[in-house]
Amino acid sequence: MARSLQHMLLGRPLPTTAMLEERLTRPRAIGAFGLDALSSVAYAPDEILYALLLAGAAAARLSLPIAVAITALLLIVTVSYRQTIFAYPHGGGSFTVARENLGRIPGLVAAAALMVDYLTVVAVSVTAGVQAIVAFVPALDTHRVSASVAGILLLMVVNLRGIREAGAIFVLPTYLFIGSLGALVVWGLLRVTVLGGVPQAVHAAPPPAVEALTPFLVLHAFAGGCTAMTGIEAIANGVPAFKRPEARNAATTLSILAGILAVLFLGVTYLGQHVGAVPTAQANVVAQVGRAVADGPLFYLVQLSAAVVLLLAANTSFNGFPLLAATIARDGYFPHQFTKRGQRLAYSNGIIVIGALAIALVVVFRGSTHALIPLFAVGVFLCFTLSQAGMVRHWRRTRGPWWRLKLAVNGIGALATGLATMVVVVAKFAAGAWLVVLLVPLLVLNFLAIHAHYQRAREELANVGPSPEPHDVRHRTLIPVHKLNRATAEAVRYALSASDSVIAVHIDDDGDETRQLQRAWQAWCPSIPLRIVPSPYREVLDPLVDYILRVQAEEPRQPLTVMVPEVIPHRWWEEPLHNQSAFGLELALRYKDGIVVTTVPIRLHR
Amino acid sequence: MARSLQHMLLGRPLPTTAMLEERLTRPRAIGAFGLDALSSVAYAPDEILYALLLAGAAAARLSLPIAVAITALLLIVTVSYRQTIFAYPHGGGSFTVARENLGRIPGLVAAAALMVDYLTVVAVSVTAGVQAIVAFVPALDTHRVSASVAGILLLMVVNLRGIREAGAIFVLPTYLFIGSLGALVVWGLLRVTVLGGVPQAVHAAPPPAVEALTPFLVLHAFAGGCTAMTGIEAIANGVPAFKRPEARNAATTLSILAGILAVLFLGVTYLGQHVGAVPTAQANVVAQVGRAVADGPLFYLVQLSAAVVLLLAANTSFNGFPLLAATIARDGYFPHQFTKRGQRLAYSNGIIVIGALAIALVVVFRGSTHALIPLFAVGVFLCFTLSQAGMVRHWRRTRGPWWRLKLAVNGIGALATGLATMVVVVAKFAAGAWLVVLLVPLLVLNFLAIHAHYQRAREELANVGPSPEPHDVRHRTLIPVHKLNRATAEAVRYALSASDSVIAVHIDDDGDETRQLQRAWQAWCPSIPLRIVPSPYREVLDPLVDYILRVQAEEPRQPLTVMVPEVIPHRWWEEPLHNQSAFGLELALRYKDGIVVTTVPIRLHR
Repeated sequence: MARSLQHMLLGRPLPTTAMLEERLTRPRAIGAFGLDALSSVAYAPDEILYALLLAGAAAARLSLPIAVAITALLLIVTVSYRQTIFAYPHGGGSFTVARENLGRIPGLVAAAALMVDYLTVVAVSVTAGVQAIVAFVPALDTHRVSASVAGILLLMVVNLRGIREAGAIFVLPTYLFIGSLGALVVWGLLRVTVLGGVPQAVHAAPPPAVEALTPFLVLHAFAGGCTAMTGIEAIANGVPAFKRPEARNAATTLSILAGILAVLFLGVTYLGQHVGAVPTAQANVVAQVGRAVADGPLFYLVQLSAAVVLLLAANTSFNGFPLLAATIARDGYFPHQFTKRGQRLAYSNGIIVIGALAIALVVVFRGSTHALIPLFAVGVFLCFTLSQAGMVRHWRRTRGPWWRLKLAVNGIGALATGLATMVVVVAKFAAGAWLVVLLVPLLVLNFLAIHAHYQRAREELANVGPSPEPHDVRHRTLIPVHKLNRATAEAVRYALSASDSVIAVHIDDDGDETRQLQRAWQAWCPSIPLRIVPSPYREVLDPLVDYILRVQAEEPRQPLTVMVPEVIPHRWWEEPLHNQSAFGLELALRYKDGIVVTTVPIRLHR
Repeated sequence: MARSLQHMLLGRPLPTTAMLEERLTRPRAIGAFGLDALSSVAYAPDEILYALLLAGAAAARLSLPIAVAITALLLIVTVSYRQTIFAYPHGGGSFTVARENLGRIPGLVAAAALMVDYLTVVAVSVTAGVQAIVAFVPALDTHRVSASVAGILLLMVVNLRGIREAGAIFVLPTYLFIGSLGALVVWGLLRVTVLGGVPQAVHAAPPPAVEALTPFLVLHAFAGGCTAMTGIEAIANGVPAFKRPEARNAATTLSILAGILAVLFLGVTYLGQHVGAVPTAQANVVAQVGRAVADGPLFYLVQLSAAVVLLLAANTSFNGFPLLAATIARDGYFPHQFTKRGQRLAYSNGIIVIGALAIALVVVFRGSTHALIPLFAVGVFLCFTLSQAGMVRHWRRTRGPWWRLKLAVNGIGALATGLATMVVVVAKFAAGAWLVVLLVPLLVLNFLAIHAHYQRAREELANVGPSPEPHDVRHRTLIPVHKLNRATAEAVRYALSASDSVIAVHIDDDGDETRQLQRAWQAWCPSIPLRIVPSPYREVLDPLVDYILRVQAEEPRQPLTVMVPEVIPHRWWEEPLHNQSAFGLELALRYKDGIVVTTVPIRLHR
């Protein structure tokens, strides 16, 4: 039954040979990998204004220049990443590029930064999606957290079903969003330049200036706006998911994506500035531009598709994170359970982990996008920088045709993104970036510890010894006896089938019962000694463990098997009526050498 | 370390011989068993007024007559229970009396009713205790639930330490409460009768009448006031906890307790009526009487000691519930884990269970005493009735001296409490008594199912068969092989030490690895066949389970032991880095006959 429920939720299992058919076409890839980048139009312009408006309404005039600067940075990064895609057709994630060119530690730093980034993308996108719905369904305002959690759970299920179907589900809303927001931007520009008569945005009066318009404030606005670029690296990470030729398809998709993003981001920022938008938790800049420019069906279409796209944007991370986790797990820096594909060819463990962590993040930050944003951009820009720096080294080593030009392109990319990283860290440090600055090194240390552990384990397990012969070793068995019944009897028979040396032990927590047991035992099986261990404090486990360790110490080179008779009832709900003493014993002896704990199950049939 | 923490919290373990020293003296017994009864003065007068005031302020004049009626009932019950104590010196709980005289089912009904009662006592007393503190620390009002939960946790720890210390801790507050509330009552009566000048209670004007003063309303008030009597049965249940002579000490304690209770209850009710008290969630009748009669140090002393006593009143249940659970568990109607005394001679499991359930109740009812009250009295009065009815049968059978008189006393008790039960059920049904009416039969059905299960299990396990001989049975072993390393090698050696028939199985989820493994295996140990099971969906567990079941079915009469090599890392935090595949396998094969799953631990040392 559990299996059929699983199939209903996740689809039928797929054989490994189905792997190639699961590849993405270019239009589908925009759905699967591009949503994160595109949907940032819903919060990046807001972050610019949140910062600038601290210096009063007049400061908002700087939003367009800042957006232009960010767009320039976007173009640099795009050109840089195109080179990466062609140089690393098997997946040029920042991890791979940094690792291969800069060494192990920079690679792991990139991996850690990416992990943090993927995680925050899920939280930010889903909460921003809920916010977009709140803009036209205000009643949802008080249920932000539960709505966000429901969205993340939905994404987990969709992704556990496998990547192709995930892509298919996301294509329609993506193009609806691009189409409607594009139409809104074009219509807005037409009204501004030719038709005229665009009203001001409906909102509370802009807040009074509380800070001076310092360069630091401008940098703060720039850092906030940089969230527009998050997600652009997802394609380089996921090249192997494209249909053949993978690299060309991926590069073209990246260029198209960056172009669309630039147009939408600049358009929304310009119009927002023009209508005097003041972002609030209830209505973002897109929503205020929509109300002002086309308060009708188009507004609702934009909001609805933005909501859907934002909710689904988190999907980029559900593709990227498990792939990254599998990659570094294969190198031994992450638990190897993450290398296994599930029944539907998706990396199930990675999907479950990122979903669970994102839910925790949403709950802790009470579903507020604006509160989550500071955690957000540091990771991405760190990756950008490491990746571009890696490419610079790459060209210096490989020296293919035009290598100097390519090196220059990536060099400019590295420099620009490196500067941006510093800006983001400094500007957002107190607001939450410190958490990421703390988390990334901790993750790296964790990776290294895991790697060292697997290394040690492999070395310790390497020697299999000579070909085994029957009865190389003799082992002794010990049976804890509570009372004499069929459970005990079967355990004794089982022990005798495995070993010639059987000891029975009774913990004496009640004198009368013990004497009775001794008599019955003597009558039933005088050949096996029943040893009595006193327990004045009525504890059973501790004296038993002590005794077992003493017995083991007598002949430390022979394995001692503790065989615990366990009555297994016929119905699962009867389980609590029986002691699960074997479990406690296993736990207590888990790290003791030379001891094996076996449960001898005695199953009831009525 | 866990053990020393346990000793710090719970005290050093006590040997079984320490049992007699743990007995209670009479003054201590009032602390251990009497708190529940005494502390009900804090809510019983309120419940009378809550009901009467629905018919307007004038109806409050009926509160004293109703309290007198309840006191009369209390005296009847006390006399009845004294007879029970002498007739059942080994513990005359309602369960024992009803079971021995009325039969199995009435006995179990009494047990179920008592369990519900004990549980609700904890919830009601602790929340009422918090309410008493709120009366002079209003800031606590919003933290009722967490304060109540903290109180219950404290009680759990105190009781896990053992009964004598629990009694000692409770003696001082009890006598402080009796003394200060007694002084308040006496001072109040003096002012009313001789000195004069008692002001009206300070409160919002009494609410307007919303109902007529019907007989039903009076019965409702009576039913609410009956909560004053809860807890009076605890002594009869706990006779064996008294010092010798147990019965005489218990009976005397009961009489003293009932006398104190009657005086305080009548006094508070009378004074409450006189000052025109209107109970609220912030100040109960005792608090309002205190403010009116002696608004000074005495008021604070009464409130503080009432708060402490109420918080500790729940302790009656922490003594009673585990004792009852152990009694019925010994008869096979409750999981036998409840019969075991812990290291400190207390029935640990019972204490933990009632604490956890009470916490759940407090959280669900959001810490409101008034909301919990309707769950409360039904159970007690049902027990009273069954117990007295049982005593009537007892006297008819045993016919000692004065048996007719004794029969008459218990008969009147049975009749009066039976009527009261019906009143309580009818009056409080919609407000919550329905839950208890539902729960008691469900519990009884559960007891019977548990008993039937133990009966069946005992029958099935009775036959131990002939004296066992070495190699009565031969068993086969099967080893799941993931890769060939020392873990696998040790499992194979261990299997060969236990059995001549060893099968190795590899689940083929990756063709290349499988071919590599086959070659290595052939070179290492050609004598043991390595069977390959294909897994096109990359699942490991399901195909393995299917294969094991097939192998077992080949020779169903021989036990098949599955030996799973499990790498156990050196440090506990490394555990998640290794598969716990044995656990899943054990779970999947738990109910399958003839299969034993053993974990062969391979411990890492670095």
